[in-house]
Amino acid sequence: MDNRKIKAILDSVKSGKTRVAEAMDQLKHLPYEDLGMAKVDHHRELRHGIPEVIFAEGKEQEDIIRIAEAMIRNSGKALITRAAKSVFRDINAICRKHKIKAVYYEKSRVIMAGGSTDRKGRIAVLCAGTSDMPVAEEAAVTAEFLGSKVETVTDVGVAGLHRIIHAGKAFRDANALIVIAGMEGALPSVVGGMTDKPIIAVPTSVGYGTSFGGLTALFAMLNSCVPGIAVMNIDNGFGAGVLAHKINSI
Amino acid sequence: MDNRKIKAILDSVKSGKTRVAEAMDQLKHLPYEDLGMAKVDHHRELRHGIPEVIFAEGKEQEDIIRIAEAMIRNSGKALITRAAKSVFRDINAICRKHKIKAVYYEKSRVIMAGGSTDRKGRIAVLCAGTSDMPVAEEAAVTAEFLGSKVETVTDVGVAGLHRIIHAGKAFRDANALIVIAGMEGALPSVVGGMTDKPIIAVPTSVGYGTSFGGLTALFAMLNSCVPGIAVMNIDNGFGAGVLAHKINSI
Amino acid sequence: MDNRKIKAILDSVKSGKTRVAEAMDQLKHLPYEDLGMAKVDHHRELRHGIPEVIFAEGKEQEDIIRIAEAMIRNSGKALITRAAKSVFRDINAICRKHKIKAVYYEKSRVIMAGGSTDRKGRIAVLCAGTSDMPVAEEAAVTAEFLGSKVETVTDVGVAGLHRIIHAGKAFRDANALIVIAGMEGALPSVVGGMTDKPIIAVPTSVGYGTSFGGLTALFAMLNSCVPGIAVMNIDNGFGAGVLAHKINSI
Amino acid sequence: MDNRKIKAILDSVKSGKTRVAEAMDQLKHLPYEDLGMAKVDHHRELRHGIPEVIFAEGKEQEDIIRIAEAMIRNSGKALITRAAKSVFRDINAICRKHKIKAVYYEKSRVIMAGGSTDRKGRIAVLCAGTSDMPVAEEAAVTAEFLGSKVETVTDVGVAGLHRIIHAGKAFRDANALIVIAGMEGALPSVVGGMTDKPIIAVPTSVGYGTSFGGLTALFAMLNSCVPGIAVMNIDNGFGAGVLAHKINSI
Amino acid sequence: MDNRKIKAILDSVKSGKTRVAEAMDQLKHLPYEDLGMAKVDHHRELRHGIPEVIFAEGKEQEDIIRIAEAMIRNSGKALITRAAKSVFRDINAICRKHKIKAVYYEKSRVIMAGGSTDRKGRIAVLCAGTSDMPVAEEAAVTAEFLGSKVETVTDVGVAGLHRIIHAGKAFRDANALIVIAGMEGALPSVVGGMTDKPIIAVPTSVGYGTSFGGLTALFAMLNSCVPGIAVMNIDNGFGAGVLAHKINSI
Amino acid sequence: MDNRKIKAILDSVKSGKTRVAEAMDQLKHLPYEDLGMAKVDHHRELRHGIPEVIFAEGKEQEDIIRIAEAMIRNSGKALITRAAKSVFRDINAICRKHKIKAVYYEKSRVIMAGGSTDRKGRIAVLCAGTSDMPVAEEAAVTAEFLGSKVETVTDVGVAGLHRIIHAGKAFRDANALIVIAGMEGALPSVVGGMTDKPIIAVPTSVGYGTSFGGLTALFAMLNSCVPGIAVMNIDNGFGAGVLAHKINSI
Amino acid sequence: MDNRKIKAILDSVKSGKTRVAEAMDQLKHLPYEDLGMAKVDHHRELRHGIPEVIFAEGKEQEDIIRIAEAMIRNSGKALITRAAKSVFRDINAICRKHKIKAVYYEKSRVIMAGGSTDRKGRIAVLCAGTSDMPVAEEAAVTAEFLGSKVETVTDVGVAGLHRIIHAGKAFRDANALIVIAGMEGALPSVVGGMTDKPIIAVPTSVGYGTSFGGLTALFAMLNSCVPGIAVMNIDNGFGAGVLAHKINSI
Amino acid sequence: MDNRKIKAILDSVKSGKTRVAEAMDQLKHLPYEDLGMAKVDHHRELRHGIPEVIFAEGKEQEDIIRIAEAMIRNSGKALITRAAKSVFRDINAICRKHKIKAVYYEKSRVIMAGGSTDRKGRIAVLCAGTSDMPVAEEAAVTAEFLGSKVETVTDVGVAGLHRIIHAGKAFRDANALIVIAGMEGALPSVVGGMTDKPIIAVPTSVGYGTSFGGLTALFAMLNSCVPGIAVMNIDNGFGAGVLAHKINSI
Repeated sequence: MDNRKIKAILDSVKSGKTRVAEAMDQLKHLPYEDLGMAKVDHHRELRHGIPEVIFAEGKEQEDIIRIAEAMIRNSGKALITRAAKSVFRDINAICRKHKIKAVYYEKSRVIMAGGSTDRKGRIAVLCAGTSDMPVAEEAAVTAEFLGSKVETVTDVGVAGLHRIIHAGKAFRDANALIVIAGMEGALPSVVGGMTDKPIIAVPTSVGYGTSFGGLTALFAMLNSCVPGIAVMNIDNGFGAGVLAHKINSI
Repeated sequence: MDNRKIKAILDSVKSGKTRVAEAMDQLKHLPYEDLGMAKVDHHRELRHGIPEVIFAEGKEQEDIIRIAEAMIRNSGKALITRAAKSVFRDINAICRKHKIKAVYYEKSRVIMAGGSTDRKGRIAVLCAGTSDMPVAEEAAVTAEFLGSKVETVTDVGVAGLHRIIHAGKAFRDANALIVIAGMEGALPSVVGGMTDKPIIAVPTSVGYGTSFGGLTALFAMLNSCVPGIAVMNIDNGFGAGVLAHKINSI
Repeated sequence: MDNRKIKAILDSVKSGKTRVAEAMDQLKHLPYEDLGMAKVDHHRELRHGIPEVIFAEGKEQEDIIRIAEAMIRNSGKALITRAAKSVFRDINAICRKHKIKAVYYEKSRVIMAGGSTDRKGRIAVLCAGTSDMPVAEEAAVTAEFLGSKVETVTDVGVAGLHRIIHAGKAFRDANALIVIAGMEGALPSVVGGMTDKPIIAVPTSVGYGTSFGGLTALFAMLNSCVPGIAVMNIDNGFGAGVLAHKINSI
Repeated sequence: MDNRKIKAILDSVKSGKTRVAEAMDQLKHLPYEDLGMAKVDHHRELRHGIPEVIFAEGKEQEDIIRIAEAMIRNSGKALITRAAKSVFRDINAICRKHKIKAVYYEKSRVIMAGGSTDRKGRIAVLCAGTSDMPVAEEAAVTAEFLGSKVETVTDVGVAGLHRIIHAGKAFRDANALIVIAGMEGALPSVVGGMTDKPIIAVPTSVGYGTSFGGLTALFAMLNSCVPGIAVMNIDNGFGAGVLAHKINSI
Repeated sequence: MDNRKIKAILDSVKSGKTRVAEAMDQLKHLPYEDLGMAKVDHHRELRHGIPEVIFAEGKEQEDIIRIAEAMIRNSGKALITRAAKSVFRDINAICRKHKIKAVYYEKSRVIMAGGSTDRKGRIAVLCAGTSDMPVAEEAAVTAEFLGSKVETVTDVGVAGLHRIIHAGKAFRDANALIVIAGMEGALPSVVGGMTDKPIIAVPTSVGYGTSFGGLTALFAMLNSCVPGIAVMNIDNGFGAGVLAHKINSI
Repeated sequence: MDNRKIKAILDSVKSGKTRVAEAMDQLKHLPYEDLGMAKVDHHRELRHGIPEVIFAEGKEQEDIIRIAEAMIRNSGKALITRAAKSVFRDINAICRKHKIKAVYYEKSRVIMAGGSTDRKGRIAVLCAGTSDMPVAEEAAVTAEFLGSKVETVTDVGVAGLHRIIHAGKAFRDANALIVIAGMEGALPSVVGGMTDKPIIAVPTSVGYGTSFGGLTALFAMLNSCVPGIAVMNIDNGFGAGVLAHKINSI
Repeated sequence: MDNRKIKAILDSVKSGKTRVAEAMDQLKHLPYEDLGMAKVDHHRELRHGIPEVIFAEGKEQEDIIRIAEAMIRNSGKALITRAAKSVFRDINAICRKHKIKAVYYEKSRVIMAGGSTDRKGRIAVLCAGTSDMPVAEEAAVTAEFLGSKVETVTDVGVAGLHRIIHAGKAFRDANALIVIAGMEGALPSVVGGMTDKPIIAVPTSVGYGTSFGGLTALFAMLNSCVPGIAVMNIDNGFGAGVLAHKINSI
Repeated sequence: MDNRKIKAILDSVKSGKTRVAEAMDQLKHLPYEDLGMAKVDHHRELRHGIPEVIFAEGKEQEDIIRIAEAMIRNSGKALITRAAKSVFRDINAICRKHKIKAVYYEKSRVIMAGGSTDRKGRIAVLCAGTSDMPVAEEAAVTAEFLGSKVETVTDVGVAGLHRIIHAGKAFRDANALIVIAGMEGALPSVVGGMTDKPIIAVPTSVGYGTSFGGLTALFAMLNSCVPGIAVMNIDNGFGAGVLAHKINSI
């Protein structure tokens, strides 16, 4: 559409119908926005690997399905986080129609429809306790969907140093580490003292009383004595997966 | 004084001057408070080892000196925390008069005048960074003043596990551990995973931004995945010294 | 396993197959982690008395049962806190198979399976109001499970001093006091003025409005004018029981 | 002025110059505000005993003096809280001119110029520690200025119950109690358990770390297990003095 | 009982069986607590008018009924706040047996069983909005139960000054005013500018977003530009009723 | 009524029955309040366009219906926010009787009964995400009810600048912009950099973790680098609609 | 520059050197940014009345002077808020060179250099106490600088309703009201009940204790029972001046 | 040392003096710590590029110099953040002795002594306002010290989109972006919508009132609608520099 408008102006200049000064004026008043959009859309295609993701919590099922279906139709894939099982049933039906594989991860309530199967590099996901596993799974599935290989090690609490040391095998070959912990949130500091890899720390809402739904872990991570730890919002496994994939993709 | 009152009543009963009913009435109306006080004072003598301590911050020097002098006169010792150097000069003059040794600990600003020299048992004080040393010193000096042997190990950050493991020698023989840390306050958890000794955790106000003057470390310690850690107020080395001494004295 | 590796190296040195320098190299590259684990595991055996405890809240019943069964099989005992009654039914069935006694404490929702029956020393548990009783029970049951004798006194509010004074009988012979209070959290200060025993204060979430789910009691306890009070996280009766037992066991 | 306006209207009605309907209209449009002001001013004269008080903090000395001088000129008295000593010198000079006695209370930085000398009833002021004395003095001086008899008892900490019981003599005859405490703010609860008098609790900013500049004491007081305690803002001795005087004056 | 113990000692002294020194010793070891209790209990009888009140929230119905029944049996009255309707049914049955009138106030969920019918003095209760009425009712019913006359005026928001001015009639004859408001909590300041009566302010949890469940109203009340306002915990109508009754009873 | 009182006085003055001085006295003691009310009521009539609105949340349905019916009867219109669908059914029945159109907006749960149909000017409502739509609808419906034309543009997140630029068309002709966002609340700043129209920012409770139920968005908006942004309480679309309408009506 | 580029392309099209398709391509790849900038800059000229303003706090004097000089040179005016007097001396020297009048407002520390002298409309600024005057002055000077007539009324506290009613004269003719208050921040609600004008509320940091440096006033304003109040950041008189001017300019 | 111990054991095994079983025992009891340390130290050598950095704030100058000198002596370089100018003078003297270049960055108060000169890759640092420049400089200098090429673009506020778009040139070729902002902290979201590079967001303490010393910016960044943004502690330019360098070095 924009293109047609610009073409019309240029044709008119060429044919002499429109004077240059006039054409300049018209070009200036050509909706800035449209040019902008075209530009940005093109841009969006370039990064392609990270399609928009649907955060299902608080959205109505009908809306989620509608958006997801559009995504699946256009790109053959969709990632939906914090989704109820009933959402999965609908998505699965759509995927069967498009002959795409859909998986529902129960712990993290993530639906992965399609997505990268040729996974590269390596990301290690470590989590302190079994209660942190939903967040760990969300991080892992996100990174896998985007095309990264992921290895997850669970139950690596700071009160059992030997388990962390043991987990070292897993993170030695990773390009990025996602470290997940609730309560006092100390795991990223301890792991950070044992590696030179970029660490992405995710506080979880696991705990009670002064864990403040994850705030204590969050602040502990922001104050780590290990410099350069990347901190995410509470329970934001998805964000961690995205950042780890970006680093893993360099 | 009370005793004299009670004795007078009993003597009077014995001699037949006062009837039993009358004496009972007198005893009942004997100022409850005084009995109470006597009781408590006696009680206080029993625990003796922990005399009142002067928290100098916010008090006028004149008042501090007056209270300290009374203590030194009565008990031959005094502990003054958060004291300016100028306070020490005055205390030192008083101590010389009473032939008592007075020491000023510059880092923690603690004045120890007299105090136990026959120290027993063993308390280990560990602190994460050099900035935590004033609090560590306050804890150590307090426990020593009360009569405990103390060993202090500094610079045991969680980002360098080997240093903590190394410090293990110090805390293996201790009856109680005082673990001091600012920032993310993770040290008590890590140490707690390596020992079965009672741990007293002291958060410090070391840090910036979301360390919130020690609150993050405090909350991290309260949420430690190691059960049974005793937590103190921020920078409260004195309290930690008192509790450690109590445990060390059992 | 480690041992076999080391033995193989040493045998090889002995037989002359491996040179000393070579052996040294092999020993250096022997997985640090494994040595570490062995060490820590051994350590764990030494403290033995405090087995891992299952915090049931937020865990799925199936997982709880699986972990508990493993514990019961290995050690003949298990402590599960914040457990639903339905969990107890399953645990009880397992215990009957192993001929172990299992008890469900309804107020605190603690399941005690097996555990020490030869209880020693003495811990006093005091709580301010009837609403604080679940936390008091959690503390008491934990300490008993670990092997301590416990005496609990309830309804000792600061607004009725005589009741506290009365409770003095209970805590006079204790090695450690657990003092539990919600609302303004003043009880540890008042009790602390009447004894020289180590005090473990547990704030509870009892109250409304500015009790902030126990935060006000927590901060009041951290600011007690009685020095050396050990403070726990909100409602953390379990932690208090562990620490009291440690002190009681010295 | 208003009066003159109204009189003019009424005179005009009387003389027949203005019709009743017209006069009604005029009265309706008579500035509402002015009537209001007259009313309120008259009201203010009735309660008279509590003149406006100058809170000096953050005001320029010149302004303070100007307002105070107007008060002294009109009413022969003025109360200025949180005033620097230099303010007192100027006020004192003014008072000498008006032959009024002016006193500067150094601890609380209150200037009392004139004020009631015939003091009635009885208010008891109790404070927990010596650091709380400035607030206690502000409360006491305010109540005395307004015309109440005040008795102050200091150093009545909750950790020494016998001292509180002893202080009972002082508050037994009072109509209202002002109880002042920092740190854990437990004193009002303990005192409240020993009396049926109205209690006004003032939290002070005394303490460090999680005393949060008095917030912990404030919240503890609002959550007292003793019902009906009147709570003031942090360090607000002045407000406590006003309320106590109001109750004492009934 | 105590008395018998003391009498026995005195009799023994009189008869010469026990020496004075011995008797003194026995008196000293006479349980301090018992004396204390007697004292306090006697005290409690004197204030009598304010019996203990049951805060039902968080208590089990069975316990509430048991405690209430004991109160009704002993004193012929009971006040139960925050009680479910099912509690009322049981209480009502008990009251019928004892021929006492029981009333359930639905808005505030207060049960008044018996209580003073000869009400004296006057307390005015003002509340800002209809949503604040439960708290207003709790305050009013409490004061009435204790024996005060109460007049309640509702819907007196600060955005409609004329309604407040109108309400002035109600509070002109009161000895104490209870002013209840949620949201911005401005009503006590506005009312306070119009009266010299003691004002008891109760913040309510009415509002959303930054009303923070009543915290904003609470802090606004503590910061009122009207000096001497007594502030209660959020939604604490009961406390306000107690204090107002105490002031009204002077 | 007031008028009659005043008339009586004036008549009496006119007839000579009452002397001017006497009449003045009577006028002075004429209830201030009543005059006040008349004044304010008259005032209220003048602004008329903004009738009282019913905030249904936390009110009982019966009460809502009763108030709404009175409004509809008197003014032929009513606006009810945060109303359940069951409320709408009752309101609709009433409206049918009065032959007024009633609409229920499901997303925002607003009931509009009657209200202005001749809408003027122009207000633009922009919202960042689909989850913010309930608040956007509440704002839009409010402004329309009051008589403003409204255009709403949704899904204008800051991460997609081109969409914001595109929305520029909508807000170029508006007199006021309502900009709604949750999470980081950045949209008002970005929009504010592109227009000189008054901006009304509404933070929403959309988000999780450190979005703190909308507080983060609120504070971000209060700290916007664009000067003069009007900020509302969290989720307060209604307030934004009122202010936008006031500005649009100038 | 952009223009020249575009012109070159068009000329080339016109002359036939460049084909239309080629020109289209060139136009599409014309730096988006530059077009954007041109557009926005042009936009900026249109709104012109609100030039950038220098917030001096935290900036070095040298930098402030440099930026201000550029502004004065280009536009003949500059507004500098929170500026030290020493900044004014330098600005004044520059202004004298440019024959522009510069004024330093001492209370608010605002420098107004040049600015609109033909002021229109009317804005009323009300503030609660004398301590709020710096913020009131900042608001007033900002609006005047931008070209609005401003009337300021000070000392209109909610505890003296008559003064607010009196101030009504001032705000009756205003197009927008700026209402400034610290402490409990109730003034906007009270004023809001008396007018239908848009109200801009500014909380100030005046107060102590739980005023939290203005947070309590801020939250009270956000929770006002008067709908549609525009709230600014704490002490942000400048923002209020900008918004009031925008509304006054419609 | 360890090596010597191990060698001695092995030699002894070899020579037959020590039996294998005995040697195994000795090896097991070989201080775990020492092996550990050797391991970790070796590890540290591998990552080498990121030497320990001195955070000078709160440390005594004497200590800083001593630590820095050791670093310079060993590694020929040192980075000292938050250092006073007086520290630089001493460091510079030391550097001259070692013929190392030392630079003092005044805005950020960073001292760079030696450090990488062969800088690789590319990191872009963007900051919103001039007041954020100290943090930007700290980030940039840190990354350069570690060996990364850095380009800094300042004054890229969200209220001027064209400036951000313009800055796009700078960040198009970067491997990692550091985005720094105070106040509402919106810049990372806006930049994040325009690039697929990893973004490291640093909130600054720039702002007043509800900026809460950077907390608002921090929370805004944690809640960004752009997924995967790495967030640092407030003003933590150093941490951002480290993480960006790690990513840039992959």
